[in-house]
Amino acid sequence: MPVEVALARLLDMAAAAPILMREEAPLADCMGRVLAEPLVAMLDLPPWPNSAMDGYALRVADSKGQPLPVSQRIFAGQAPHPLEPGTCARIFTGAPLPAGADCVEMQENAIVHDDQRVSFSEPLANGQNIRPQGQETTVGETVLVAGTRLGPIELGLAASLGRASLKVIRRARVAVLSTGDELVEPGQPLGPGQIYNSNRRLLCSWLQRLGCEVIDAGILADDLEMTRAALTGLGNVDLILSTGGVSVGEADWLGHALREEGELALWKLAIKPGKPLTFGHYRGVPVLGLPGNPASTLVTFALLARPYLLRRQGVGDVTPLCFSMPAGFNWPRPGVRREYLRARIELGRVVLYPNQSSGVLRSAAWAEGLVEVREGTTVQEGDRVSFIPLSEVLG
Amino acid sequence: MPVEVALARLLDMAAAAPILMREEAPLADCMGRVLAEPLVAMLDLPPWPNSAMDGYALRVADSKGQPLPVSQRIFAGQAPHPLEPGTCARIFTGAPLPAGADCVEMQENAIVHDDQRVSFSEPLANGQNIRPQGQETTVGETVLVAGTRLGPIELGLAASLGRASLKVIRRARVAVLSTGDELVEPGQPLGPGQIYNSNRRLLCSWLQRLGCEVIDAGILADDLEMTRAALTGLGNVDLILSTGGVSVGEADWLGHALREEGELALWKLAIKPGKPLTFGHYRGVPVLGLPGNPASTLVTFALLARPYLLRRQGVGDVTPLCFSMPAGFNWPRPGVRREYLRARIELGRVVLYPNQSSGVLRSAAWAEGLVEVREGTTVQEGDRVSFIPLSEVLG
Repeated sequence: MPVEVALARLLDMAAAAPILMREEAPLADCMGRVLAEPLVAMLDLPPWPNSAMDGYALRVADSKGQPLPVSQRIFAGQAPHPLEPGTCARIFTGAPLPAGADCVEMQENAIVHDDQRVSFSEPLANGQNIRPQGQETTVGETVLVAGTRLGPIELGLAASLGRASLKVIRRARVAVLSTGDELVEPGQPLGPGQIYNSNRRLLCSWLQRLGCEVIDAGILADDLEMTRAALTGLGNVDLILSTGGVSVGEADWLGHALREEGELALWKLAIKPGKPLTFGHYRGVPVLGLPGNPASTLVTFALLARPYLLRRQGVGDVTPLCFSMPAGFNWPRPGVRREYLRARIELGRVVLYPNQSSGVLRSAAWAEGLVEVREGTTVQEGDRVSFIPLSEVLG
Repeated sequence: MPVEVALARLLDMAAAAPILMREEAPLADCMGRVLAEPLVAMLDLPPWPNSAMDGYALRVADSKGQPLPVSQRIFAGQAPHPLEPGTCARIFTGAPLPAGADCVEMQENAIVHDDQRVSFSEPLANGQNIRPQGQETTVGETVLVAGTRLGPIELGLAASLGRASLKVIRRARVAVLSTGDELVEPGQPLGPGQIYNSNRRLLCSWLQRLGCEVIDAGILADDLEMTRAALTGLGNVDLILSTGGVSVGEADWLGHALREEGELALWKLAIKPGKPLTFGHYRGVPVLGLPGNPASTLVTFALLARPYLLRRQGVGDVTPLCFSMPAGFNWPRPGVRREYLRARIELGRVVLYPNQSSGVLRSAAWAEGLVEVREGTTVQEGDRVSFIPLSEVLG
């Protein structure tokens, strides 16, 4: 199954099972979450015409070369009086323009005379150095659409419109399971045949960055009864995300347990690393089974699970930015699966980590992005390849 | 002052005032933090040769076409017995290779006879489908250098090496101040001449994403005495980060108060948005004053404050990825300052938000990145321009 087919299916299923519950959250708790309703401006920005400079506000028609007296001083945060005809007002950046003024001259072009009157050395133009009311936003405009992910910029924008809280989609609740008798948690001694569980930390950290609530279900024992008990204990979650174990293998107790009370499809993805992916339902809860090799888990989470989870929360655009870059490597043998190689940019070219095996995350920690090499294609140095920065999928 | 000169100065000052305190933190608390010492592999990965496939482990020399009995079954997590000569072992992906075996044949190429003996249809090669011990990492190798920022991938990698905690640099403690009598916090009513404070939310959210500890000092009143009191109350911080107010303006009480007990330099940066930047010290604590317009705050934080803060924590590479992309716009008039335009990628070309004024964050919320247009240059549609994805600077 080509990657884009798998992604389209997952996104369709996500759109068919949206998380609908909303809650009002203070801005400080909204990071990484998804806006549940449009953010509509309840005021004009700026709320009134104001000065873009430190200088003097006046009527252009009043300045015929003669010095003008200063009739008021207007700091930002003050409400000005209407401008007396034949005078100017000292004004500072961001301060409201007094009624009657139609231009601001910057202080560098003002001559302050001994009697404190001011004349202006340069020609004046109507509207100069004035930011008009509503230049950026007017009342009633939609500033952010529902389904927008909220980062520092969006939260700053909501604050600028006076919003102390926003209506957001409930956090997606994701249960993370690892399977395999060979897995041991870090910090414990390693027995014969055992390895440390890295996927749990990878996925729990990543899901938190994505704004999800993580239910860490630990390592499932390779035992049907205990697997059943663990699944039953998960409670009310939006997704069961497992790594390793869901396959056609003889020791696949998770697969057994899931099939007992739901359905499970094994997708043979044309993706490398990361061929086997399972998707199904357990008592109505979607289940996504990622392959257990760390680099496979990384690639399938980045390209499939992440967009699925964002779409469940109603995010429209779930596609990471991708850049066309010259290759600094050769890839002479066309593959039957689409490869996502761990890569960096050096001197404007994409170079590969020497060891692209799927066993550890070292290649990914070194990498700045993933290079996509499509099935059936080769790459020669200098050819353009698609590069997805890791920063685009990690947050 | 060109942007690169300002950045180089800031990075020099950051390197001269590193945050030295370290602490051991559990992996779950390490997100976004900086590794204080190299992460060195304390074990080989994989720890032993293991099978890359579900299949059969055997000696190539034993397979001369005749069926072999299965002498053991080895699941992942089990310790195998040495392979009995003239037999094969059923083996599953990730399981340790039994001593004596020198190849693994995948189950698809195995014929299981009625008597349970197995023969192999394809030629066998020494080492095939075996992941050798230490293929990815061997004991003593430095896997991550000190100064590495820790994200999900790095934390997964540390877990794979058995680390439950890491030695990290203490979080940078950053006091965020906004100045200006015109500022009101979101959720409050707006008086005449007042606007909502957006920079506080922008910066507090962003700093948290960067792994900093934020001391939110709120809005300073435009009053010298209260400004002094607020500064004194900040306690022990690594950086005082202010927006607005630190300038040469008459109402600049923060500048007055800072100059009383330290020094403060005003840098006129050749950057747009974001010309005035101040840097100094207050009672020995570095002070960085960003301009108050939201888009100026955004650009100067992204390009100057963020790398400064990362370098204070010992991060080596603080440069965001930058991509050369064809322009989908014209920029006919060369500027005297370097411009950072809020932009998106559409059909492979960089397009600009129509309103590039610095007053609100709407352009940045729309944008996917910043386009750099260097001072003294113009851009014609189709020219290549530098594009910095926002994801590269937001996390």
